[in-house]
Amino acid sequence: MTRKIVRINMSDLKATYEDVPKKWAKWGGRGMTSAIVFDEVPPTCHPLGPNNKVVIAPGWVTGTPAAPSSGRTSFGGKSPLTGTIKESNAGGLSGQKIAKLGLAAIILEGTPAKDKWHYLVITKDGVEFKDASDLMGKGMYEIDELLWKDYPKTAVIGIGQAGEMKLSNAGISVNDPENKPGRYAGRGGLGAVFGARGIKAIVIDDDGGPGVEIANKELFEEGRKKLADAIMEHGLTKKDGGLNAYGTDVLMNIVNEAGGLPTRNFSAGQFEGAAKISGEAIAEVVEKRDGEGMTGHGCHPGCIIQCSNIYPDESGKALVSCIEYETAFSLGSNCGIDDLEIIARMTRECNDLGLDTIEAGNSIAIAMEGGLLEFGDAEGALKLFDEIRNKTPMGRILGQGVEATAKAFGVHRVPTVKGQSMPAYEPRAIKGIGVTYATTPMGADHTSGYTIAPEIAGVSGKLDPLTDEGKADLSLAFQASTAFIDSSGYCLFIAFPVLDIQTGFEGMVDSVAGVMGMDLTGDDAIALGKDVLKMERLFNERAGFTKEDDRLPEFMRYEKLPPHDVVWSMTDEELDKVFAWVHED
Amino acid sequence: MTRKIVRINMSDLKATYEDVPKKWAKWGGRGMTSAIVFDEVPPTCHPLGPNNKVVIAPGWVTGTPAAPSSGRTSFGGKSPLTGTIKESNAGGLSGQKIAKLGLAAIILEGTPAKDKWHYLVITKDGVEFKDASDLMGKGMYEIDELLWKDYPKTAVIGIGQAGEMKLSNAGISVNDPENKPGRYAGRGGLGAVFGARGIKAIVIDDDGGPGVEIANKELFEEGRKKLADAIMEHGLTKKDGGLNAYGTDVLMNIVNEAGGLPTRNFSAGQFEGAAKISGEAIAEVVEKRDGEGMTGHGCHPGCIIQCSNIYPDESGKALVSCIEYETAFSLGSNCGIDDLEIIARMTRECNDLGLDTIEAGNSIAIAMEGGLLEFGDAEGALKLFDEIRNKTPMGRILGQGVEATAKAFGVHRVPTVKGQSMPAYEPRAIKGIGVTYATTPMGADHTSGYTIAPEIAGVSGKLDPLTDEGKADLSLAFQASTAFIDSSGYCLFIAFPVLDIQTGFEGMVDSVAGVMGMDLTGDDAIALGKDVLKMERLFNERAGFTKEDDRLPEFMRYEKLPPHDVVWSMTDEELDKVFAWVHED
Repeated sequence: MTRKIVRINMSDLKATYEDVPKKWAKWGGRGMTSAIVFDEVPPTCHPLGPNNKVVIAPGWVTGTPAAPSSGRTSFGGKSPLTGTIKESNAGGLSGQKIAKLGLAAIILEGTPAKDKWHYLVITKDGVEFKDASDLMGKGMYEIDELLWKDYPKTAVIGIGQAGEMKLSNAGISVNDPENKPGRYAGRGGLGAVFGARGIKAIVIDDDGGPGVEIANKELFEEGRKKLADAIMEHGLTKKDGGLNAYGTDVLMNIVNEAGGLPTRNFSAGQFEGAAKISGEAIAEVVEKRDGEGMTGHGCHPGCIIQCSNIYPDESGKALVSCIEYETAFSLGSNCGIDDLEIIARMTRECNDLGLDTIEAGNSIAIAMEGGLLEFGDAEGALKLFDEIRNKTPMGRILGQGVEATAKAFGVHRVPTVKGQSMPAYEPRAIKGIGVTYATTPMGADHTSGYTIAPEIAGVSGKLDPLTDEGKADLSLAFQASTAFIDSSGYCLFIAFPVLDIQTGFEGMVDSVAGVMGMDLTGDDAIALGKDVLKMERLFNERAGFTKEDDRLPEFMRYEKLPPHDVVWSMTDEELDKVFAWVHED
Repeated sequence: MTRKIVRINMSDLKATYEDVPKKWAKWGGRGMTSAIVFDEVPPTCHPLGPNNKVVIAPGWVTGTPAAPSSGRTSFGGKSPLTGTIKESNAGGLSGQKIAKLGLAAIILEGTPAKDKWHYLVITKDGVEFKDASDLMGKGMYEIDELLWKDYPKTAVIGIGQAGEMKLSNAGISVNDPENKPGRYAGRGGLGAVFGARGIKAIVIDDDGGPGVEIANKELFEEGRKKLADAIMEHGLTKKDGGLNAYGTDVLMNIVNEAGGLPTRNFSAGQFEGAAKISGEAIAEVVEKRDGEGMTGHGCHPGCIIQCSNIYPDESGKALVSCIEYETAFSLGSNCGIDDLEIIARMTRECNDLGLDTIEAGNSIAIAMEGGLLEFGDAEGALKLFDEIRNKTPMGRILGQGVEATAKAFGVHRVPTVKGQSMPAYEPRAIKGIGVTYATTPMGADHTSGYTIAPEIAGVSGKLDPLTDEGKADLSLAFQASTAFIDSSGYCLFIAFPVLDIQTGFEGMVDSVAGVMGMDLTGDDAIALGKDVLKMERLFNERAGFTKEDDRLPEFMRYEKLPPHDVVWSMTDEELDKVFAWVHED
């Protein structure tokens, strides 16, 4: 059996299946989406125009039996938020089902007839194009529920109202095991590109699919066991370890303590209300309210880390899943909001409307700086989501993200790189992550090269977050290994055990090698990661990006960040070294 | 007497006078603003942040006695609309008065205390900083009137509500001889940079000023006479000639006939209502309503072309000055609006709020494409200006210009280059102007290299607008000579006689040489123009612009423009040749 690609053309409503061509045969996940976008999307095309595409790809090991925490789906295209190539991956049900249908990628292309919207149903028998009229204007909670009525237990990929409006902060939702829209390919506005294809949702039913072929079962089996053991051994990923007990929001108090928690539109590195919106606080609420709330929840079948939470409302009923650390920062500290209840409700709004929570919260924060609301006005912030639901002009501003909102309000302190707003780690106080923000092909993004591991979490050694030295090399090393992990379908959190436990790293590499029938050393894995980065950097260059785009915002050079009173001090020369190899190798 | 520069720092409210330093001594007008911005503004700074500046400079011959049509004032800075260097020049009263005070440039820099607004009064005795509280929230009609109560007959430079909001389409107004805000440094949003300095207005009183020194009076006198004679001889610029009789809107029927009139957001090159909004139609209204309306009006003292009009309301009272061709296009054909009355009222709104009419009309057009209004809805379009006056979210969208409005409405047919929307000449049907749009350092701008002269108006020969051949060289030649003219303080319309009448060209060069005491041949003049272009291109490169930014929008390559059914066909290689000399010379 060969992996297939299905090319879905919305101009003539035709789906074409083809074997994965040789040039893409080695890729999965992010490597696959970036390779296809690199080859097929003109770098200077308009992101919402007819020549952009959305590519969806499960990772190498996704859909295999028992590769731990490997259900990620990659979404790729040219981003309307950044203008760069973009890969954003999500948990949820889609990756495994796509892979089990024998599909290595779904390519969405072509232009729909004006105002004609469809949803697609992909099964072992092919692709059905369905009239989406009844789904239009609806949020993802309702979409997921409606589609499960007709297609129970399927994966549902979809966009909320933000994607219908083609707003630059529209994410792509994937339903979680409870059929809630909690998992998002959020960053970079790919939901708008999805919407520009006239697609409201895609149902994936893997019933009767051929499953994933494993070239070397023994090697795979050995690898996945070694990796699973390492995950279960590491303090951050084991059962009742940091992530399992408190979720990613376990970082809130830690990063706040380090003075790197962006607060009130990146004007301070500590927030007096941090403890009230931390993972520990979430766990307390879950315990107190019992009911459907829980921590240690998996975002997709087969996850053994289970860092997700289900936050209950006052009656104990599930309100939203999941409040990540980055969400608690963007809707919380960065808006000066310490009300966990409101943050939970705003998170639900993001999941329903189809917005990236990081960009959404940061957009509110910058509007606060522009005078729309006072920092800390939780009720006022919550009401803003109705503006997007009602498609008001204010909704059209906020739904486009931080840069657009800054322009609308005449604000010049704009914490973005390449048009994407910064996540929950202040680069003036944590220098390595600043290098990642500046240089990753994705725009300001922590997941592209998570130097927080050594700088804050003490994983793979402990580095001083406040020093510049060595951080350029560190970021590149993380970016390369991340590009490999993002291609594998494994959750990025396996990085913690993989970095600290040698057998974990071997297990990751071997499990991939086993599935793909590759002969793969650890060095090969990093080299593959660099190949992905190279395609992405070259795409961006051809789109017009230069080293001047690999910079943090100007104000971080002249405005001191409390409490450490530090500015961004990394030299431009140092930043330019990070990707110099692209033209040297 | 040496020319001075006054540096006005809004951080400490101090004005410092200095002799023009040697490095800038040869410059005037655009050459001066671009040289100062090139030397002093960090190319990657945020346009609204503390490190940007606004530079104001009269041209070389501005303020001299009887240099014909030479009252232009150049405004420079880093543009919030384009992110490029920007020079935008205006008629009105300011240039001559600044020059007569002995000033070669005014530099506005520094950051005001939060929410503190001033107006400045510049006289022979220095600069006064005045509290602007009473002027805030007011439009330019009222500002001009209020300031003339205290400072009669002065030049008033100012910003409307758009500049207060720091919107990217905020222009800088200069009062005309009737003290109306009809003359604008409109393009590129420099009004927002002005506003970011906390300056609402500047009053220029030249009473008792030293006047402009003329190094070689004989040469100057000879030159200005030759130029004046040529202007009075040329069919386009002479008394009762095309521009004098009908204003710039004489182009409406001509360009429409050529199939190059952008209509309904650049979806067609002809507009069935063109005649109704043409210069001829304006002249008819003026004649019929008598009263204060007039054509053949000068925008500044000493203009002998007098292409401006004063459009009367139904009672014959002056309603607005001036309805340019570009205004009649943007608020007219490009919105599908053929109601001259409403166009006049919208023009007045632009002049009052402080908006560039080109960008303002095009923003409405793209919002129409996005579904906000039907094309042709004149009353609906007129009402939109209240949104800006009332600082509503919709006003904040539209006031930012075409790209921001396109993003807010998810539109991908976006007729912009480097973030600035295209003026009144369809580049698919008039190829040379397309080269100018693509390559000028200013973003899509017709005045930077007005190839319309030979392509449409038959000036300096007659070229087929529909052929690509030779248009790259043509555009560069126009861009270089324009940079010289923009530095001189002469109105760009002297280009018509200068191009067609050799003594006119000599007169222009000699008059400049006479004032500046330069030894200047015609070739020297073009070389000076190229020096200006080179500074501007290098600034942009350092700001991160590449050849990928020297492109017309994607849709113009695949969407055929009626009636000629042509696409943009110029190769990228051809475009890249235009400024190759910057790194070769």
